[in-house]
Amino acid sequence: MGSERDPLARRARAEGLDRDDPLAPWRDEFLVADPGIVYLDGNSLGMTPRRTVEALQHVVTEQWAGDLIRSWWDNDWLRLPLAVGDTLAPVVGARPGEVAVHDSTTVCIFQLVNAALDLRPGRRVIAIDAHEFPTDRYVAEGIARLRDGEVRVGFDDLEGVDVVLRSMVDYRTAAVADVVAETERAHAADATTVWDLSHAAGVLDLDVHALGIELAVGCTYKFLNGGPGSPAFTYADAALHDRLVQPIWGWFAQRDQFDMDRPFDPRDGIARLLNGTPGVLGLVGAREGIALTAEAGIAAIATKARHLTAYGLELVDAFGLESPTPRDESRRAGHVAVRHPDAMTLHRRLQDRGIIVDERDPDILRLGMSPLTTRFTDVHDAIAAIADLVNGR
Amino acid sequence: MGSERDPLARRARAEGLDRDDPLAPWRDEFLVADPGIVYLDGNSLGMTPRRTVEALQHVVTEQWAGDLIRSWWDNDWLRLPLAVGDTLAPVVGARPGEVAVHDSTTVCIFQLVNAALDLRPGRRVIAIDAHEFPTDRYVAEGIARLRDGEVRVGFDDLEGVDVVLRSMVDYRTAAVADVVAETERAHAADATTVWDLSHAAGVLDLDVHALGIELAVGCTYKFLNGGPGSPAFTYADAALHDRLVQPIWGWFAQRDQFDMDRPFDPRDGIARLLNGTPGVLGLVGAREGIALTAEAGIAAIATKARHLTAYGLELVDAFGLESPTPRDESRRAGHVAVRHPDAMTLHRRLQDRGIIVDERDPDILRLGMSPLTTRFTDVHDAIAAIADLVNGR
Repeated sequence: MGSERDPLARRARAEGLDRDDPLAPWRDEFLVADPGIVYLDGNSLGMTPRRTVEALQHVVTEQWAGDLIRSWWDNDWLRLPLAVGDTLAPVVGARPGEVAVHDSTTVCIFQLVNAALDLRPGRRVIAIDAHEFPTDRYVAEGIARLRDGEVRVGFDDLEGVDVVLRSMVDYRTAAVADVVAETERAHAADATTVWDLSHAAGVLDLDVHALGIELAVGCTYKFLNGGPGSPAFTYADAALHDRLVQPIWGWFAQRDQFDMDRPFDPRDGIARLLNGTPGVLGLVGAREGIALTAEAGIAAIATKARHLTAYGLELVDAFGLESPTPRDESRRAGHVAVRHPDAMTLHRRLQDRGIIVDERDPDILRLGMSPLTTRFTDVHDAIAAIADLVNGR
Repeated sequence: MGSERDPLARRARAEGLDRDDPLAPWRDEFLVADPGIVYLDGNSLGMTPRRTVEALQHVVTEQWAGDLIRSWWDNDWLRLPLAVGDTLAPVVGARPGEVAVHDSTTVCIFQLVNAALDLRPGRRVIAIDAHEFPTDRYVAEGIARLRDGEVRVGFDDLEGVDVVLRSMVDYRTAAVADVVAETERAHAADATTVWDLSHAAGVLDLDVHALGIELAVGCTYKFLNGGPGSPAFTYADAALHDRLVQPIWGWFAQRDQFDMDRPFDPRDGIARLLNGTPGVLGLVGAREGIALTAEAGIAAIATKARHLTAYGLELVDAFGLESPTPRDESRRAGHVAVRHPDAMTLHRRLQDRGIIVDERDPDILRLGMSPLTTRFTDVHDAIAAIADLVNGR
């Protein structure tokens, strides 16, 4: 590649990579309000699919305003959480009927960890990593308080642990856990693992069944471009459905929902993980974003993610920057972290230059590479700008 | 009023009531896709505010697509659940900082009933009405199972009851509970009441403080016109905030949310009842619908609701139909129920005539009267059509 002394050649190389990128045309499916922005935060909030703008317009003006209450039946709103789940299923290697899209990631984790504890009587110990994403840790702490349970920190010793709550991808470094080995190790200790796929779904070519994943949750507003705060997804292996009891009992989880005077009797399948009335607007956003990923193909997306991150790490090295992101592409997801003591200042100064990256306290810049929208030139421009700033230019 | 033998005079009277209605112009704030529809189900799904269409367009194309991740700060998305709560607060007589809009009604009930139980150690008994709306009953059953608690059916004897979960308005008959007396009676038994205001908020001129309500939840997609499945609201008297511990701990309830490596430490105020990342699109819909109600004024809305329902009951009587809805306007909310053994068939046949009402198994037709959109002529046309059908015309 071009050295730091030959910036034009270096950028030309990025342009060439964009020209050769088979997924490049998919960026046209997104609304780019400001073409001058370099956006490397699609792993926090994915960009806006054009079809989402149209779909929301349709659902609001035609369905809501036109068909009104009848939309729950005539436009299949009642089934949206399951229908969107079925659109997502192949993206993570699940089968139809194994995924539902509903509620926040936090609520989904709460439901699934409780359900995992309740798979056998007397379970009460949850293991979690000390540096897990905050909401996962908080949920575990809250459940332990509620159920007179216990949170153990760390996975080295799983003796006595009942449920492991764990992210597949480290939200700071993009390191990918060895899901097969870790799930098996938990199994050997009689523990059930709930995997958080928030930074994995939509960017890694997942096969939940091949990976031995039984229960998982994840975001749709990151790599799946579902929109701000779009609902999360819950996956459960069909073999477990009959035994799953989650704690938030609501009418969307009820068999014969509109038969009003019966006691709670959960629906078959993943539907028993629903609870209240689903937010239709958020689900429509999730549906459109997920559909784009399904159409582009997760295999091609995952391939491009590896190329983007490899290219990013190559530039990190060329500029003498430091990254904790794994070099082994099989252990790396969809972002490249740059470690620098002035990360917080750099983050602001990059923003002043129209370069949007993420920061994670205290010393991480996070460069999200979302294959349907991120260009190699974006990666180049961001890392070159970081090098400039670090070198006082 | 005109007798059944003078239908023209009878309808002319409805037209006159519409002409004299000071709130009539507010209907122009709503998108009416099919002017031929008589819509009396705004208590299940409110109509579509025109400004919601514009606001969604703005938030998607300007904020999401334009400002991207920065919108959480620059467009105050982080504060949306609290900001929308503050818009709603005066509509129910709450003070700023006492209401949050977030998650489904089911999730909000789950959080609040658990928080009510946890106000004192050892509480475990929840009382609920045998004919309460299903999701409320299911949530109570689920909590009892989770916490080794107990559900008592009925409110006659509150001895040993810790938490009363109760709708202010009966979803079938529109009967309004005596909130002051019932809350005091629960207090006398050392029980905390969680009021479900789903069929009350946006149609009754509530003053939660004057009523002695400490904890409440409600829908925004009914009389508040927030959109399909728009997020619910949680109200908690500020005097209780410091003592509230809800079970779903997430990063939006955390003090210094982006300081990632600390244990859970809930925010001050109503914010501690939040959990995960809020759905922005749903909140924008809720905000616009709630703002319309706040602007039109809840006192005027409640007055028109009394007039609409009184007119509806007058017609019910004139046509010899039967209604379980209270005649005392101080005990009646925003709909009129018509009881008929063929209610399910009538519901379908009304729909064939473009008249949309609701039905509740086995024998109730529910005519929702949403004061910003419902006309006296709608009430007339629906009840006249029911009479026609009942009389075989």
